[in-house]
This record gives sequence, structure tokens and C-alpha cells, in this order.
Amino acid sequence: MFAPVYLDHNATTPADAAVVDAMLPWLSLQFGNPSSRHEYGRAARRAIDHARRQVAAAVGAQPGEIVFTSGGSEANNLLIKGAAACFKPGILAVGASEHPCVIKPAEQIARRGWTLHRLAVDSEGRIDMDAFAAVMALKPKIVSVMLANNETGVLQEIELLAAMARRAGALFHSDAVQAVGKVAVDFRQLNAAGVQALTLSAHKFGGPKGAAALVMDKRVDLEALIAGGGHERGLRSGTENVAAIVGFGVACELAVQRCAEVAPRLLALRERLEERLLKLGAIVFGRAAERLPNTVFFAFPELDGETVVGQLDRAGYAIASGAACSSANPEPSHVLRAMGVGPDLARGALRVSFGSGNTPEQVNGFLDALQTTVARLRQLTAMAV
Amino acid sequence: MFAPVYLDHNATTPADAAVVDAMLPWLSLQFGNPSSRHEYGRAARRAIDHARRQVAAAVGAQPGEIVFTSGGSEANNLLIKGAAACFKPGILAVGASEHPCVIKPAEQIARRGWTLHRLAVDSEGRIDMDAFAAVMALKPKIVSVMLANNETGVLQEIELLAAMARRAGALFHSDAVQAVGKVAVDFRQLNAAGVQALTLSAHKFGGPKGAAALVMDKRVDLEALIAGGGHERGLRSGTENVAAIVGFGVACELAVQRCAEVAPRLLALRERLEERLLKLGAIVFGRAAERLPNTVFFAFPELDGETVVGQLDRAGYAIASGAACSSANPEPSHVLRAMGVGPDLARGALRVSFGSGNTPEQVNGFLDALQTTVARLRQLTAMAV
Repeated sequence: MFAPVYLDHNATTPADAAVVDAMLPWLSLQFGNPSSRHEYGRAARRAIDHARRQVAAAVGAQPGEIVFTSGGSEANNLLIKGAAACFKPGILAVGASEHPCVIKPAEQIARRGWTLHRLAVDSEGRIDMDAFAAVMALKPKIVSVMLANNETGVLQEIELLAAMARRAGALFHSDAVQAVGKVAVDFRQLNAAGVQALTLSAHKFGGPKGAAALVMDKRVDLEALIAGGGHERGLRSGTENVAAIVGFGVACELAVQRCAEVAPRLLALRERLEERLLKLGAIVFGRAAERLPNTVFFAFPELDGETVVGQLDRAGYAIASGAACSSANPEPSHVLRAMGVGPDLARGALRVSFGSGNTPEQVNGFLDALQTTVARLRQLTAMAV
Repeated sequence: MFAPVYLDHNATTPADAAVVDAMLPWLSLQFGNPSSRHEYGRAARRAIDHARRQVAAAVGAQPGEIVFTSGGSEANNLLIKGAAACFKPGILAVGASEHPCVIKPAEQIARRGWTLHRLAVDSEGRIDMDAFAAVMALKPKIVSVMLANNETGVLQEIELLAAMARRAGALFHSDAVQAVGKVAVDFRQLNAAGVQALTLSAHKFGGPKGAAALVMDKRVDLEALIAGGGHERGLRSGTENVAAIVGFGVACELAVQRCAEVAPRLLALRERLEERLLKLGAIVFGRAAERLPNTVFFAFPELDGETVVGQLDRAGYAIASGAACSSANPEPSHVLRAMGVGPDLARGALRVSFGSGNTPEQVNGFLDALQTTVARLRQLTAMAV
């Protein structure tokens, strides 16, 4: 198999070997339905209980605060739509740079009588505090702001925002899908500041696709998005994906063990990359903001992002041109538009997101390939003028 | 590992070795996000496209008619709630013996202005045709009746019911989760009769947990249950569970190849079992109805189902006491109550559901263990009187 250097860890990550090993028995001999009352079922139930403790421990939560879902998109939809179903219609506010799986369900409930406010971000991608305070004065019922942006890596001041939202009487949720494994995430501390629910997703930090969680203060009322047999305290029905949940648990344990060692290493890669990118004439988005240690979102004015991604793919480097949310969506990044970046520059956007397996040598190789590609494309662009 | 004889295939099935083998690369080296525009992403996209063709071929559908979801519960909720969101509130009708993941979302939309009718079943568990016709005369907008019941195995006359529902102007959906691999399921033929959507679930026929599908006539309008990046033609957002979907595809191919050979074998096991059950004084529910070849739902008057399941588990046989939908639900079966079975007899309910790996010898061994258990419990009951 042709294996380019993978520099797209915000899209998805390879599962750790220990994660896959832990999953295997639950795909074959240990196949029971956790709801079954015989040994096959009990074994599966024990495995899920164990994974629930691992996930809870990794983010400083209690096992009873973990609601397993099939993915981050489901967890975000469960929170937004599930909470909205428990209120009379009112005001809902979400960050302008949220992932579509927060924005789209918010738009769905806006069609059912709710008023949706998109919380403005500044040119660096940070929530604009004055605009935020103005929306809080309108007494929204639900507020959702992501901990770290998937495209730019920009971190929000979640504790401050949560405290303001809670004082205004709102339910406060944060999509932490991109944060776990890259920065410390402590639900007890966040909850004390006012964060009532957090979204996690296994496949963003060495776990499998198919397992995620809503970490939630038990005092929050939600209507189930997937209703049925009453699994997950009635909040998420359906036979549990035992193997994926087991892998999620192991990935959580590993992520926490490694975060202190991995994060500075990722940051060193990021700094190495940014230094040369700037010399090559790139613009790095959100550069003045606190950001994830692994993410660089940048563009070369006048060059098309998709074209660069294609050429680098052939040169052996896998990066993203923007959010890998759906190939059916060719629009320029809504995150950059929210930051006031013009459509021409936004169309040039490129994202490198490192993982624990990346090395300085890979970054150097990537930069050489990028430099060659950019020079060639600039020459072609100049000839076309 | 202690490995009892598994006779609970309607709860879940072991994944076929070929299914697990096909999944493995997608859990490790081939980990790309199908939405990514580099080689890792394209490889994952090709795998999903291939699985989509396999699933479609297995049920006589077109690949474009398959909407992948994380499970049968999600697919049923997507259909019920997604369709309801596209209509003004009206009448919704679901079978009284449907799985909770059809009944509960129907109850949710009934709290939003819809009127819910539970379609009565007769003493054998078949939809009562007169009652059905009476509800159709009220012009329901959505009708959902399962193809085969998970507890009794009773098959409904879906083509007849669909035709009546369609003539009344309703959208007609059928939960076929328990049917695939046990009886032939042909969406083209069902669709011609009026069935517009079918639910399938991989883990019920040798596939993994975490992959399922709504097979749907493309003319049906649905609002996404999980909204976001726009995956699955905008009907189901979220990074695809590539490995599980690949396993689903292989399981579909195997199920269709084997169905003609397996179904008569299952039926022979069922007949062997029922013959002796009747001699032991058991009542077999839905016995006069057309049923799945693999399912026997029965009770011994005066004996508690849970107790029998526990004793048989220790004797090395894994069976169910009712639907394994959630351990949080100790109520007697709503399916049996809908069939007019009294609560005392319903609490005695036991379900044996065979899979392709079961043998006549296992059935004989099970019957011997059951006979011993029943005799002992009857003695205890008699002593207690």
C-alpha cells in the first residue's frame, strides 16, 4: 500500500495498536449484547462499564456522567436538539466557527420557533467578548461554544464564556472533540466554571470511529435523539457498539498518559512548520490566538488550496484543504469567513494537523515538498497572467 | 473463556470470521476519513462505496437508496422523526408489537401535536386487518409495521399492509432488522407493493455492531436526525464508521449466499425444539402464524422466565427471557400484552433464536437441560404452594 506521510490528524487518527488489540475479542468470540442476561451479555456489559470508567477518568468526570454515542456529530445533535425539546422555544446561541454538526441542528431548531444567534469571532477566531455579552443579555436558553476549533486549532476561553452564559441562565455546552489528547480537559473544573456538557470523539485521538460521548452534568434534562430500549439512562437507545466503546476507553487512557509528553513535541513541530511557512510567504490563520499544539491552518495568497493538497498527496504528504466534514461541500471555510477572511484567500486554505507519530524529519520533508509545489504553482500562475 | 451454547441470535450474532478479516485493515493502516481528499481518504471512500453496493445488492435495492446509520434504532428514529419533521402534524400509526425504537420516537412526536395509533395485533401477533383498515380510513401520514417480530418471529403481510397504507396516502416503513438472512427481503418488490423504507442492522446477521441502514425510496423527504457535515446525501452526518460499514457489506453478501441453505436448517431446529417444548407443557407464542425459521418464543405456565434463563445460563445455554432491548426494563413483554397474553404467563416468556452455527445436537442438549430445569422449578413451585 502507498502510505503518504499523514499530517491530517484533525480529520481522523490511526487507532493505536493497543486500541485495536483491545477491540478484537469484542468483534469475535465476545460478541454478546450487553442487554442480554446470560454470560455473553454480562461480559459485554462489564466491558462497557470498564470503558465508561476509563473515559470518565480521562476527562475528570464520573462514570454516570458519560453518555456513549456513535460519534461526535450524534453527541452534538443530542445535546442541541435534546435540550431544545425540554424548553419552550427561546434563544439559542452557537459560535460562528462551530463545526457544522453544531450549526446545522441549531438551524433545524431555529425552524421550529427558536431564534438562533451566531456568536461572532474576531479576526483570530476567538469569540468576541462584547458581542458574546450582548447575546447573553438576551437570556439565551442554550449556548454552545467549542473548546478548540477543528480548522484553526484556536482555543476559546471556555470557563469565562461558560460562567457568563450560566449567569445569564443558559445551558452551556462545549464541543471538545478536537481538544482531548492535545490539551488537558477536566470536566470537574469546567463544570465548576459552568460547562454542563462536553462532546468527545474517540477517533480524533487514537480511538476507533463509531464511539464518542456526551459528558454531562446529570442535572441537565435532555430528550433522547435516538429513543427506544432505554440504553444509556434513556438518553441513547440502541445496542452498544461494544468493540468501539472498548477501544474508546483504551484510547482515553493512553491519551491522558501521553498528553504531557506528546503536547510539547507537537508544539515543536508546529513551531518548526510555522517558521518556514512564514518565510515562504504563507499567512497563518489565528496565529495570535492560543491554539492547539498540533494544528496549523494557513494559505498562500493566489494559490488554490485543493490544487496544493492534490500535488502534495502525489508527493507523499496527506494534508487537508479545510474541514474534512463532507466531500459534498465545496464552499470556502465558514470558519475563515467568520474571521473576516476574504473568499479568495479562504479558498487557498491548507491545514496541517500533527499526531504523536509525526517527526521533525517528516516536517522537513513536507516543507521541502511544499516549497517545490508552491514555487511551481506560482510560476504557472505568473505565466497565466 | 466459559462459552455457553449461544441460542440468542435475535439479540445479536457473532460476526463471521470473513467479516472480521475484512474489517481489520480499516481499523489500523487504512484509517482515513472518507471525506479527506488524499489517498487515505479516497481509499476509505472506495471501501464505503463498495459496501454500499453489497448492501444494496443483498436486498434488491440501488446503492443510492442506502443510508448508512450507526444502528437499527438510529435508522428507525431517523425515519419516524425525520419524516414527521417534513409534514404538518397528523396521524401516525405503528404496530402495537413494534420494537421500542419505533414506538418511543412515535410517542415523542405524539407529544408534538401528532396523534399516535397503535395498530392492534391478534392473539398470534399478526396485524388485525379490520383494525388496520379502520386506521387507514383516518388517512395517517406515516405507518410503520415491522417485517418480522424480534420476540415471536411472527411475519407480517407487509406487501398487503403497505398497499393499503399507500392507498390511504401514507408513507410506509418497515423495520426488517430481524428478517435479513432468515427470509428473503427484496426492496424492489416491496417498494413496488408500497414499502418506501426498510431498516436493516448488520449485527443481527453476522455483521458487526455499529453499522445499519435505512433503505429508502429516494422520493421520500426526511429531515436529518444527525445534521452536520452533510454525509449520506445530507440524511446522516458524521464520519462514517468505515470498518463497521465494510463488515456490514461482507455480512450482507454472506447472508444472501447462505440464506437458501441456512433457512431450512434453522426451520428443522425450530421444529425439533417446538415438538418437545409442547410435550413439556410449554405454550409457543404466535404458533399459528407465519414465523421466522429461527425463532421460538414460549413459556411454561407458573414458571418465571428470568429464573429459567439464569439456570440455563449456568447449565451452559444462552437464551433470552424476552427482548434484550435494555436491562433497565423489567416490564413483561409489550409484544405479548398486545397479543392478549396475561402478565403472569408473559413473565414466563423465554426466547430461543437459532443461528447458522447451531446444530441438532445442541438443540437436544438444550432440551435436556431445559427439561431438568423445568422439573426442578416445578417441584420447588409445588413445594411452595
